[in-house]
Amino acid sequence: MAIRLIPKDENFFLMFDEQAENVVEGARRLVDLMSDYSDVEQKVRKISSVEHSGDEITHAIVEKLNKTFITPFDREDIHELSSGLDDILDYIDAIVRRMALYGVSAPTEEAVHLANIILRSAEETAEAVTELHNFRKSGHIKKHFIEIHRLENEADQISRTAIAKLFECESDAKEIIKWKELYEYLETAIDKCEDVANIIEGVVLKNA
Amino acid sequence: MAIRLIPKDENFFLMFDEQAENVVEGARRLVDLMSDYSDVEQKVRKISSVEHSGDEITHAIVEKLNKTFITPFDREDIHELSSGLDDILDYIDAIVRRMALYGVSAPTEEAVHLANIILRSAEETAEAVTELHNFRKSGHIKKHFIEIHRLENEADQISRTAIAKLFECESDAKEIIKWKELYEYLETAIDKCEDVANIIEGVVLKNA
Amino acid sequence: MAIRLIPKDENFFLMFDEQAENVVEGARRLVDLMSDYSDVEQKVRKISSVEHSGDEITHAIVEKLNKTFITPFDREDIHELSSGLDDILDYIDAIVRRMALYGVSAPTEEAVHLANIILRSAEETAEAVTELHNFRKSGHIKKHFIEIHRLENEADQISRTAIAKLFECESDAKEIIKWKELYEYLETAIDKCEDVANIIEGVVLKNA
Repeated sequence: MAIRLIPKDENFFLMFDEQAENVVEGARRLVDLMSDYSDVEQKVRKISSVEHSGDEITHAIVEKLNKTFITPFDREDIHELSSGLDDILDYIDAIVRRMALYGVSAPTEEAVHLANIILRSAEETAEAVTELHNFRKSGHIKKHFIEIHRLENEADQISRTAIAKLFECESDAKEIIKWKELYEYLETAIDKCEDVANIIEGVVLKNA
Repeated sequence: MAIRLIPKDENFFLMFDEQAENVVEGARRLVDLMSDYSDVEQKVRKISSVEHSGDEITHAIVEKLNKTFITPFDREDIHELSSGLDDILDYIDAIVRRMALYGVSAPTEEAVHLANIILRSAEETAEAVTELHNFRKSGHIKKHFIEIHRLENEADQISRTAIAKLFECESDAKEIIKWKELYEYLETAIDKCEDVANIIEGVVLKNA
Repeated sequence: MAIRLIPKDENFFLMFDEQAENVVEGARRLVDLMSDYSDVEQKVRKISSVEHSGDEITHAIVEKLNKTFITPFDREDIHELSSGLDDILDYIDAIVRRMALYGVSAPTEEAVHLANIILRSAEETAEAVTELHNFRKSGHIKKHFIEIHRLENEADQISRTAIAKLFECESDAKEIIKWKELYEYLETAIDKCEDVANIIEGVVLKNA
């Protein structure tokens, strides 16, 4: 009779997949709002409800963590990964709430562009999360990190140019205040994807 | 002869009570400043001295933590709870310092309202901290969490409406810049109470 | 034959020295840019490349940490110290990038003053890092902490006065938005030196 080792709990991976998918869902709705700026209030409410689902998944992960003795990787990393994913969605939610709050009449071209980069970063992040299941074997995960870093650089360039343009061309101080903040939030959502990529990279390294 | 177990150090609870009471004291003085906007400089100085006392308590907790072998709950949670409480007071201090710095002539109605919510959140937080003493037995602690979340939602609504009004009705860009920041700080002080509630909730869960 | 204990890895100290020296290098170049505001683009690019070297050192420290079994002090503190030093340089980089982005034509007197305080804080921080090698014996380290706190207070005073002056004397809202942010970033760079000093102080206390 063989000794049965206590199996590490694989369910965490499924919960992370669910959380990452929910982030992608939020990003998809952000792009939809930006590309078709109608029914704004209803679309914003829907994004807030996606964000709320995200909070519930995060909460479930923390609760599971408190009850689980053997985890598939470091407890602290599980916690960081979960709140990192949560942060992305928080920023997406903050962006659209602010657009409604500030009575933005139409998104700028740069804002639409940045929203699309958020979606692509969220998708790459979700794929890296899925690769975590096989972190001892996977060679594919690196290309997601590289792509996320590339997207972050691209977004950085776009938001910087947009802010410089704002100070040069916009004469209404109110518009400058509103759009400067919106660009910063859009860029931060992408930075948060990069943070998650860095957390995953750390987990992969430690468990190599 | 019975075996004497090393007792967990109960003094941490008393130190947290002291720290939470000091936060309430700061919040009370904030409400006083907002409701009766006279002797501003003197009142601001007094709040800064309350904040300074808070720093000393935090420092004492960290020092005690470094010297204590068996703690009443996780070391990391003790650290987080203490700096969480410290953050609330830091924001209260930042609000009044900024009001003085910006030469605010009178607080708006919404600012007075938000200050009152900060006080109520601080009081609820202090009561939750006190309940920590009995975390294995207490059924009362939950109602404090619920009330803090309710207050946070209320504050969120007020500050959002205030900022929207600012962009609609205020024509002086300087005033927009000043008050937008003040509303954000007021709201963040309440968010920090919610953060502390979440830390306490985690401690209760882990020690249930 | 004596038993050979596994030696704690001393190389971490050398890596921290290198990282701290790199921070000082960045601060020196910031002062140079502020004092002689010419060839701005080229000087900004050079500071960004110093910041990039800093990232590489941080990365090397994290990688070494993941592979090292016995560390000279707590793993978590090594991590915090390294990212703390990284933060200082991130802010220095952000300051000069924003000056270029906003098309600042000349730094204000207060900005030059604050840049000089950043350099002095960075130098004191680097000396405190060097003292870490001897943390069981050193009595000199305290004077660096005291000086860093003094510099932080001085900077706080300068940036507050500068911001108050901005709201009083500047009529162009764009300039207020730009300079308010720049002063806040300059001050935060110094706050980050103080954060590092606090981390080092904690390490010294725990290992006393």
